[in-house]
Amino acid sequence: MLDYASVAVFAVTGALAASRSQLDIVGFIFIACLTATGGGTTRDVILDRTVFWVADPVILAVATAAAVAVFLAAHLLESRYRALLWIDAFALAVAVPAGVAAATGTGQAWPIVLVMGTITGCLGGLLRDVVCNEVPLVLKQGELYVTCAFAGALAAVLAARAGLGPLPVLALCAAVTLTLRAGSLAFGWRLPVYRARPPRPESPKRGP
Amino acid sequence: MLDYASVAVFAVTGALAASRSQLDIVGFIFIACLTATGGGTTRDVILDRTVFWVADPVILAVATAAAVAVFLAAHLLESRYRALLWIDAFALAVAVPAGVAAATGTGQAWPIVLVMGTITGCLGGLLRDVVCNEVPLVLKQGELYVTCAFAGALAAVLAARAGLGPLPVLALCAAVTLTLRAGSLAFGWRLPVYRARPPRPESPKRGP
Amino acid sequence: MLDYASVAVFAVTGALAASRSQLDIVGFIFIACLTATGGGTTRDVILDRTVFWVADPVILAVATAAAVAVFLAAHLLESRYRALLWIDAFALAVAVPAGVAAATGTGQAWPIVLVMGTITGCLGGLLRDVVCNEVPLVLKQGELYVTCAFAGALAAVLAARAGLGPLPVLALCAAVTLTLRAGSLAFGWRLPVYRARPPRPESPKRGP
Repeated sequence: MLDYASVAVFAVTGALAASRSQLDIVGFIFIACLTATGGGTTRDVILDRTVFWVADPVILAVATAAAVAVFLAAHLLESRYRALLWIDAFALAVAVPAGVAAATGTGQAWPIVLVMGTITGCLGGLLRDVVCNEVPLVLKQGELYVTCAFAGALAAVLAARAGLGPLPVLALCAAVTLTLRAGSLAFGWRLPVYRARPPRPESPKRGP
Repeated sequence: MLDYASVAVFAVTGALAASRSQLDIVGFIFIACLTATGGGTTRDVILDRTVFWVADPVILAVATAAAVAVFLAAHLLESRYRALLWIDAFALAVAVPAGVAAATGTGQAWPIVLVMGTITGCLGGLLRDVVCNEVPLVLKQGELYVTCAFAGALAAVLAARAGLGPLPVLALCAAVTLTLRAGSLAFGWRLPVYRARPPRPESPKRGP
Repeated sequence: MLDYASVAVFAVTGALAASRSQLDIVGFIFIACLTATGGGTTRDVILDRTVFWVADPVILAVATAAAVAVFLAAHLLESRYRALLWIDAFALAVAVPAGVAAATGTGQAWPIVLVMGTITGCLGGLLRDVVCNEVPLVLKQGELYVTCAFAGALAAVLAARAGLGPLPVLALCAAVTLTLRAGSLAFGWRLPVYRARPPRPESPKRGP
């Protein structure tokens, strides 16, 4: 279920990137499938599970349908880049719990659950941006991205430790991820970035 | 057999890309091996088969020999980019059937056969172009590329359904792929690309 | 052991690349983990071993600690790019023997040992540079990079054939890799690169 939803939403972001690159319909489908399945495929290959879309090819039909829908309707969106950012935020908020669920389902230790949530969330979009030659969202300066995925996965790990059931755990994971990413997009929330030279050498911020 | 041929031809395209980047002999071999084995390696990892060049290291010798030959002879080609395009077309037409054969050989469902044909065809060249910082051929506007691979794999699936034997199926697959790609290179065949704004809002083309 | 050392040093190079891109702390950790584990993960997936950091998540803690240390201390380095080059040379000289050890440990044939040494050495840094949109070190013109990894792995294969024990083999591998890379950085050692047009058509260098 989560995999289906994540696939559909990421496929839309891939198709929007394809529309910015003015590709044809097959290009839309290719980038949509790459974005939609990239994170989960990496996760499954690393965990040595059967890759989720080989086990269930309907996944590919979902991504293809999303790509075709965007091909027909993308001109309705006034600003495709803004739409891409926001739809990508939702995709992230669905993909991170999907990765967490897959890792806990195979009984992995919590650090691996953290990594798999982050990878499943971030890698599809990273592949999309690298292939389309855009600056990866993951690396946009002064924005939270990997941080949102990581915080969502961390919330899931902590909630599971605290004894919550699977459904609330995944809902919390999605909520934390989406809140942070939306806050970054709408209000400019950010972490301090690395600064080349600290303003005053006599008051170094070298924390904890 | 198909794997050998696909490896040799893709290795030549990788080495031609290396000659455009003015690398040394080891760089030629590296890019040639990456291009030659990238698609098939991804295919084998996803299908959980033994990776084809681990099972048969002679593959690496073939790719290396092709790279060395291009290093010694590339200056004979007047226009390396034009040569790259055409040799890449042949590589594509060999790699797609190789991917189809590998997927049918492990008894995959037809959507997976489609995807594996397309992946095996397109991923080696995509990796080559991403690493060499060229605009991926896959994404060249107004050209057929993924479409050719996809159509070739689709032809193979339909022909197999229609009861043709393995050899005619693969020959048809190669012929369809090569014809479409060559037509795109020589005559500018293309699919309609996504257009930012349709010419007349009162006659929207929103198809089926 | 070798994997730990290679992870720590590569993580530092990833974090230095992140500091050049002015990322936040989570971005430092992300790029550091990608660089530190990219080569080994590819190696393990291709050889169908359990991925090393899934088997031992402490690896991730090592990479994270290295990233945090660089985040706090990178401003102490006057020239981060120069530091990146030299630390990367050490990382390469540790990662190649790590790859060789992993491949010989699973009883692979010597061509696969060669490839795994080279992959483990070069792929982490390649991923780092592709994601950070820098010209891959692997492709820097007029420098030895892949060549160093390849020569180190070749030295290990030859030394193992000559009957040396595991420890001297790996030490030799590291020494050859580091010497060649350091020589390239400090003294400009290089192989002849491909030249578009040979100076004199009547004296072609088409060697063996």
